[in-house]
Amino acid sequence: MKKTLIIAISFLLVTNGFSQAEDSIMIKKISDEILTNGKAYDNLHYLTKQIGGRLSGSPQMVKAEKWGVALMKESGADKAWLQECMVPHWVRGGKDKAEVSYNGASKGVRNLLVNKKELDVLALGNSEGTKNKNIMANVVLVNSFEELEKKKDSVKGKIVFYNYKFNPTFVKTFQSYGDAVQYRGAGASRAAKYGALGVIVRSMSHSADNNPHTGSLRYDTTLPKIPAMAIGLRDADWLSNQVMNNKVMSVTIKSNAHFLPDTIGHNVIGELMGSEFPDEIITIGGHLDSWDPAEGAHDDGAGCVQTVEMLRAFKALGYKPKRTIRFVLFANEENGLRGGNKYAEEAKAKNEKHIFALESDAGGFTPRGFSFGGSPEQLKKLQSWVPLLYPYGVYEITDGGGGADIGPLNRTFKTPVAELGPDSQRYFDYHHARNDVFENVNKRELELGAVNMAALIYLIDKYGL
Amino acid sequence: MKKTLIIAISFLLVTNGFSQAEDSIMIKKISDEILTNGKAYDNLHYLTKQIGGRLSGSPQMVKAEKWGVALMKESGADKAWLQECMVPHWVRGGKDKAEVSYNGASKGVRNLLVNKKELDVLALGNSEGTKNKNIMANVVLVNSFEELEKKKDSVKGKIVFYNYKFNPTFVKTFQSYGDAVQYRGAGASRAAKYGALGVIVRSMSHSADNNPHTGSLRYDTTLPKIPAMAIGLRDADWLSNQVMNNKVMSVTIKSNAHFLPDTIGHNVIGELMGSEFPDEIITIGGHLDSWDPAEGAHDDGAGCVQTVEMLRAFKALGYKPKRTIRFVLFANEENGLRGGNKYAEEAKAKNEKHIFALESDAGGFTPRGFSFGGSPEQLKKLQSWVPLLYPYGVYEITDGGGGADIGPLNRTFKTPVAELGPDSQRYFDYHHARNDVFENVNKRELELGAVNMAALIYLIDKYGL
Repeated sequence: MKKTLIIAISFLLVTNGFSQAEDSIMIKKISDEILTNGKAYDNLHYLTKQIGGRLSGSPQMVKAEKWGVALMKESGADKAWLQECMVPHWVRGGKDKAEVSYNGASKGVRNLLVNKKELDVLALGNSEGTKNKNIMANVVLVNSFEELEKKKDSVKGKIVFYNYKFNPTFVKTFQSYGDAVQYRGAGASRAAKYGALGVIVRSMSHSADNNPHTGSLRYDTTLPKIPAMAIGLRDADWLSNQVMNNKVMSVTIKSNAHFLPDTIGHNVIGELMGSEFPDEIITIGGHLDSWDPAEGAHDDGAGCVQTVEMLRAFKALGYKPKRTIRFVLFANEENGLRGGNKYAEEAKAKNEKHIFALESDAGGFTPRGFSFGGSPEQLKKLQSWVPLLYPYGVYEITDGGGGADIGPLNRTFKTPVAELGPDSQRYFDYHHARNDVFENVNKRELELGAVNMAALIYLIDKYGL
Repeated sequence: MKKTLIIAISFLLVTNGFSQAEDSIMIKKISDEILTNGKAYDNLHYLTKQIGGRLSGSPQMVKAEKWGVALMKESGADKAWLQECMVPHWVRGGKDKAEVSYNGASKGVRNLLVNKKELDVLALGNSEGTKNKNIMANVVLVNSFEELEKKKDSVKGKIVFYNYKFNPTFVKTFQSYGDAVQYRGAGASRAAKYGALGVIVRSMSHSADNNPHTGSLRYDTTLPKIPAMAIGLRDADWLSNQVMNNKVMSVTIKSNAHFLPDTIGHNVIGELMGSEFPDEIITIGGHLDSWDPAEGAHDDGAGCVQTVEMLRAFKALGYKPKRTIRFVLFANEENGLRGGNKYAEEAKAKNEKHIFALESDAGGFTPRGFSFGGSPEQLKKLQSWVPLLYPYGVYEITDGGGGADIGPLNRTFKTPVAELGPDSQRYFDYHHARNDVFENVNKRELELGAVNMAALIYLIDKYGL
């Protein structure tokens, strides 16, 4: 209940301190501009439909960078440029495949009827495939790492199937993700330790469909890099049932996933120069790269077009920021974070002063709050502004947060960071799956995210932090 | 800012009065039950896919009533029954049509090239069609009733096209609806007053597609009942442009919409008998009828399956209410409200004691709050419970509200009423349009609505109001 009390106090704080009327008028102007003349939705349409999925190293990423710089200029940036960084270049290399041979005889019938079923799978990002050859092995089903430890002696030469489920009782779905994602991240190496030949991982989702959800893994470099695939939820349930009924005879997996040499990528940066404190920099961003099977609409096309929309709206309203505002489309969030790291490195090399950074990387859904990583005093200041954001959907600013791409800024300079917190219920229906497409983004939900971010940036620009 | 202060105070009130720990444990149990074992989504699938659109008087409505009673029993009602009422029986009677003849020549060219374009239209509910004959007339474009008054002398023998737009600057979309819906409700009669032959009304939506949105109108019975149609937004923009450029030569409309004699309909009622105060009745409901062009998934299949889900969850948890709880699927909300009226009439005739009623009729979207119609003291009591609902998404209970179906109870007994307030951004993309289908409902968003309603009902049952 502590959190709600803090929020309550923040509501009361509003009576003192700030020029509320003026601020609420300005925020209303921002909202009206974005909801009436917003370009975020059209820009997202272009990015998703004309460019598409844009994994680091892909031709689409190059196209997206060019589009980003042109759009920054068109939207009114004082200057816009590409910041070069080396990025990993992982490729899927074709269609991933997993096929089960199972005993199709009904219960009690002794005859062995061999049936085959193709599973809907996607190799995990950064994984090494099977060099496009078939690997056939039996399946060991484990529902958790504890179960893996118990079964470790029977894993050798097998394919481990992690069937750990998204916990439906967490109301905020990122909690379910945080709980389950270790199986995607570390599952391959933990199974390789006991001699497994490959792993199949239940997708990080509680969707009702069967789309597999990819995403990156991390190999323990002291162990063999075995192939790893995500499997759709219906197929995961089916496979789990078959294994439990001793029906599965073998599974054959095939993938051509592999790394090519690192290549050149870029952060896209647009800037509005500060009129009073040009050396104080505020950064806003999303990441431009996205997984290959889809259009990267929610993850993170939404964050990109919201970032540009804020620039457009500030210019359209003739707003001249006191501080310098940088609008950044980061490179390589999904499988390396090289863009975010590069941005912080160069900032350090140039001895820049970064007073705040804000990210949108949780989907283009209706906004509910912000999460914040900074001092308790700074948090209190932000929370005192909640009544100004309240009419636009943001009713809480919670402690602990900030996006992946701005993490390096925070670690380098202790720059306070925040992330937009949209409603999370639908996010993991689409996250890293083939249905993360434009059609699943709602125009107004997307725009309201930009409204609340622009309002927060306006307040921080005006009052500092 | 007054509202936010009230909410802030309500947050602080939490420290006194109620057995918070026990309540939050019970509410967590309700949430876990619904999010883990919920049947609302499956039930909605049946209602939308096996039964479909179910306008009053339609065969689907009869099917839905039977389904409803069986489901109430299956979900654990002590008893379940149908409450008969007469309902209006309006039918569309075929495909509605509107076709424009316009000058297809480009600017400056004198030749008259007659082009034809079919518009995507739907006759408004309760409207009288053209008796399936073509009516051809010229179009008078008006953007508001003020403009109609100015043009009243040129309306005779014409078709009036109301092109009043949903205001995008209202953040809560029901405000845009409240602002614009007068053109659907009263536009026909106001044009008939000046001799118009028919009206075409811009759909009540700000969606990006071209689906027309139907919904009921009310004729002024002292004036001719002229045909009225809703038009999709893209076609509305196109038509408006053509008219402004003097391109439109005529429009031909055709509709077979008409009333049949009133017929028999039913409210579906399930009941859990109160253990301590059985004569004190709490009503929860949604409406079972829906417009014909779609499946009535959000409007209001969602409210129906949430209502039944609360019953199922209470029973599954072994919860024995102190007061009698009625779960009601109301008849005929869309074009008559006869179900809601009947329910209140019978309650009055039986001298029942109705202490609270709650409705869900704003879509199966992620919950944000409740609106409440009752005394300031009752509102304060409800608001003191917000911290208990907060973890499940409800952060505000606002003054003024309650659903259409429970309005008659409120007017008859001054029964306090409330309505679930889900996020409203997507509602008018689907409302009364052909895309109000199962696929546009998210399982968890739907379930969380039921969670918050069940929590509120638990608190009111326990503490009274």
